[in-house]
Amino acid sequence: MEYLGKPEAGWRLRLHRVIFEADTHAGRLFDQWLIVIILVSIAAVVIDSVNGLGDDYRTTFAAMEWLFTVIFTLEYLARLTCVRHPLRYARSFFGVIDLLALLPTYVALIAPEMHALIDVRVLRLLRVFRVFKLTAYVTEYQSLGRALAASRRKILVFLFAVLMIVLVLGTVMYVVEGPANGFSSIPTSVYWAITTMTTVGYGDIIPKTDLGRLIASMMMLLGWGTLAVPTGIVTAEISADRFLKAAKNRSCEECQTDGHQMNANFCMHCGSPLPPYSKQSLENTDS
Amino acid sequence: MEYLGKPEAGWRLRLHRVIFEADTHAGRLFDQWLIVIILVSIAAVVIDSVNGLGDDYRTTFAAMEWLFTVIFTLEYLARLTCVRHPLRYARSFFGVIDLLALLPTYVALIAPEMHALIDVRVLRLLRVFRVFKLTAYVTEYQSLGRALAASRRKILVFLFAVLMIVLVLGTVMYVVEGPANGFSSIPTSVYWAITTMTTVGYGDIIPKTDLGRLIASMMMLLGWGTLAVPTGIVTAEISADRFLKAAKNRSCEECQTDGHQMNANFCMHCGSPLPPYSKQSLENTDS
Amino acid sequence: MEYLGKPEAGWRLRLHRVIFEADTHAGRLFDQWLIVIILVSIAAVVIDSVNGLGDDYRTTFAAMEWLFTVIFTLEYLARLTCVRHPLRYARSFFGVIDLLALLPTYVALIAPEMHALIDVRVLRLLRVFRVFKLTAYVTEYQSLGRALAASRRKILVFLFAVLMIVLVLGTVMYVVEGPANGFSSIPTSVYWAITTMTTVGYGDIIPKTDLGRLIASMMMLLGWGTLAVPTGIVTAEISADRFLKAAKNRSCEECQTDGHQMNANFCMHCGSPLPPYSKQSLENTDS
Amino acid sequence: MEYLGKPEAGWRLRLHRVIFEADTHAGRLFDQWLIVIILVSIAAVVIDSVNGLGDDYRTTFAAMEWLFTVIFTLEYLARLTCVRHPLRYARSFFGVIDLLALLPTYVALIAPEMHALIDVRVLRLLRVFRVFKLTAYVTEYQSLGRALAASRRKILVFLFAVLMIVLVLGTVMYVVEGPANGFSSIPTSVYWAITTMTTVGYGDIIPKTDLGRLIASMMMLLGWGTLAVPTGIVTAEISADRFLKAAKNRSCEECQTDGHQMNANFCMHCGSPLPPYSKQSLENTDS
Repeated sequence: MEYLGKPEAGWRLRLHRVIFEADTHAGRLFDQWLIVIILVSIAAVVIDSVNGLGDDYRTTFAAMEWLFTVIFTLEYLARLTCVRHPLRYARSFFGVIDLLALLPTYVALIAPEMHALIDVRVLRLLRVFRVFKLTAYVTEYQSLGRALAASRRKILVFLFAVLMIVLVLGTVMYVVEGPANGFSSIPTSVYWAITTMTTVGYGDIIPKTDLGRLIASMMMLLGWGTLAVPTGIVTAEISADRFLKAAKNRSCEECQTDGHQMNANFCMHCGSPLPPYSKQSLENTDS
Repeated sequence: MEYLGKPEAGWRLRLHRVIFEADTHAGRLFDQWLIVIILVSIAAVVIDSVNGLGDDYRTTFAAMEWLFTVIFTLEYLARLTCVRHPLRYARSFFGVIDLLALLPTYVALIAPEMHALIDVRVLRLLRVFRVFKLTAYVTEYQSLGRALAASRRKILVFLFAVLMIVLVLGTVMYVVEGPANGFSSIPTSVYWAITTMTTVGYGDIIPKTDLGRLIASMMMLLGWGTLAVPTGIVTAEISADRFLKAAKNRSCEECQTDGHQMNANFCMHCGSPLPPYSKQSLENTDS
Repeated sequence: MEYLGKPEAGWRLRLHRVIFEADTHAGRLFDQWLIVIILVSIAAVVIDSVNGLGDDYRTTFAAMEWLFTVIFTLEYLARLTCVRHPLRYARSFFGVIDLLALLPTYVALIAPEMHALIDVRVLRLLRVFRVFKLTAYVTEYQSLGRALAASRRKILVFLFAVLMIVLVLGTVMYVVEGPANGFSSIPTSVYWAITTMTTVGYGDIIPKTDLGRLIASMMMLLGWGTLAVPTGIVTAEISADRFLKAAKNRSCEECQTDGHQMNANFCMHCGSPLPPYSKQSLENTDS
Repeated sequence: MEYLGKPEAGWRLRLHRVIFEADTHAGRLFDQWLIVIILVSIAAVVIDSVNGLGDDYRTTFAAMEWLFTVIFTLEYLARLTCVRHPLRYARSFFGVIDLLALLPTYVALIAPEMHALIDVRVLRLLRVFRVFKLTAYVTEYQSLGRALAASRRKILVFLFAVLMIVLVLGTVMYVVEGPANGFSSIPTSVYWAITTMTTVGYGDIIPKTDLGRLIASMMMLLGWGTLAVPTGIVTAEISADRFLKAAKNRSCEECQTDGHQMNANFCMHCGSPLPPYSKQSLENTDS
């Protein structure tokens, strides 16, 4: 959650501190109000979508929504001005989320049915971790992110294989079952293949011929077992990451060996006495 | 399964021993009868719910249920009196379960349809492990609990991410498919998104447009693969826990300290050299 | 796949060798014909169940089935006579399967609709591994079995917890949704709870109220994540088992340390030279 | 992705270099055009299957398809001629895929409905990794393949067990529920058993009797938990593979040999003492 650029001194610096940092009282207040506004605007859109529930309040909701959007727009412009490299901020992950958070209301002027996409601003809630000083959670989030990033190539290879399989098997079922049995086109058959291999199984399209059911059975077993692969990939990474964390504990000063347990007194590698256990070494592995 | 507080001497102490401890003959008898009463009262409620099956016995069931509730109420009051800090017991996990176990019958006087919630008292069966001295099972239960507790932050981060995803994608499907196709409101669409990402797939609400089916397909693959994450988290913790258990077999011959890691050469407690690691020590890990 | 008891000398011994052992030519021939008969009888039952397909052959099927049953009965009696402790064989896992394999035909005399249970004799195919000298597969089967056995306590604790959860949540949904919405009794609601938590999701019973859908959503997320637990348990055991296998390689003669890689020349623990790598040590870890 | 045989010198060698190798400019251009043609021909078939979308273009599609098929046929014949052992190529994995890629158009002359099977040629896209020099992905693909191959026996044992279970339980449900409730034959019941144990749960066939629902519930829990086994198998192999990769970082300073285990103290190659294990060597494991 880094923000880009070092702001200019003066009013920009103070604005930057309030908007981007959460260390000062003003900064924290700003973030907390932001979260409240995000939640209220989402609640308004959700309630409005339920038939009959929001009818009486429609004018109020509309007014509130315009107020929120104006606030978010001003905030976005403020961010752009008090950062040294506005374009880098605008293209960053959080910059894009902040923009998507205020666009729907404007788009809804042209296409009213897009109004509900205001919910996308819930992604801005990722800042909640920083506001409430939930450092331990940020650490876990980063550790999970690291494990997923480390396994991204294996995951992409796996995804490529799955897409090829559903295209081939979907086409086979299209030929075997045919439009008469619900498999009306190859895209539809591929959609069915995905619902089957991911074991979702809506039941809106089902094989009716014996050969079709046989192929479907094999696909179900294949999909069921194939789930093992991404699970194995991710688990192996998380296990390795966790092993690293466990090993970060106490190290021997003589030979630098890591991984001593909390109650160890002598280095397991060279036999030298270990410095006494202290709370600091425990806080290095809080979970 | 600890109960709180040291009771006063005398009759309270004797009562405490019977109700809370399972070492004496009276204590074990008490617990065994409690389990029988719990199972019988649950069976009565279950049978009663099946149309036609319980009609003839309704009066009997009602009488039995009041008898049981009186017994449980007396037992609960007994627990409160023979514990030093009644409020701590009342607020503990088991205290809350014990209270929920007897409330439904009283609530049913006001709201008869809540009668079935008597089944909640099945949670009192957690005591069955203690009664039958199933110590090995208690150890496994605690080990599982420890693994889950150690991974709780990662699980919360993951859950937060899933909730944001189903809200955003549910809203997108609401906009794409619309009420005409079954996606009648944002809450309904989020409910559909959860049934899809968890691969349950009831089929009561299904996407009908091509774009909707495309987004749904991506959600299914995402949900299918995302299952890998909590599995990876929990597996890594259970593996680490099991590795620790395996390591408990290396003991120092000088000072008898257990728990040395597989790669240790010197005793962590007294510094003496350890006998080398061999597979025999690993195979000694009984489960 | 051990058979019990040491047979008497003479004709019983020869019979024992043919039926129970697979080392002699007669023994292997016997087992191969047994497998053929099992497969043919199962195929007959399966074809017979498909409407219209088996009509012309019904008399043939019936005759064949009686022939097979007589053969199996004679074989079962032969096993009983040439084993020293017939009762132990009859009560063993394979003894029970052998008995269940021939009972359905007799039961079908009284209750014709049970005829199809002849398929149970497919369990006798477990002997196929032994017949075709698939030793490596037997090793893998035993290794899997060992991992599952080692984790049985954790699995039982987990199962007990799941059963309590589906009873409580099923009852809650029965109270919330009620018979009008398909939740006609507590057993039915528990059945629905199981279909939902295991993510099967038939869709024959579905929640219709908002509160019901909210509870159902939580159950889906809970069930989806709970799958992580047995997976973690089993994976941890299989990983540990696999680590053992990897470590069974070359050991140092001086210090008995195991786990040296194929290309190692010196002991990693004490530095002594290792005996040269040979094919025998590799065959100890064939996969 | 090796091709077999060393070609003759001269024109065959040059042709071999273009078709099979990707090092020369001509070779890369050839492969890139091949990929474009594959994607276009698949898109044509997919669009053609959607009712109404491809009608105007049918003649164009047909012409394009014949052009592509001629190109693929010429390419296939070229491969056969410039390889030393044509039969080995024709029987290899990629040889079979290349043949299946061009057969459907010819088969469609006799059986027009098989036209869609042209999609099978998407499997030729496996070459895309080689063309774009995605070496890291090839490594990951091979590592995944290695893990799956190492666990193939356990997977086969597991599959055999699952097939026996669905046959026995499917037959039991056929007897319990019967054709009146949708279980019209044993194959149909086995198909239902597979949809249930793999948790797909279409809902086209559902148990209606109480005993049937009870058995179905047990099957769901069994299938849900059984998913743990292949996941455990595959995860254990991937973890072991990754652990090996992590261990590649401990090198001996004397003789530079890599690959020492984390608990090693002496170089396995030359016997010199190793620098102690520290977390830095583990963190150097790039993915």
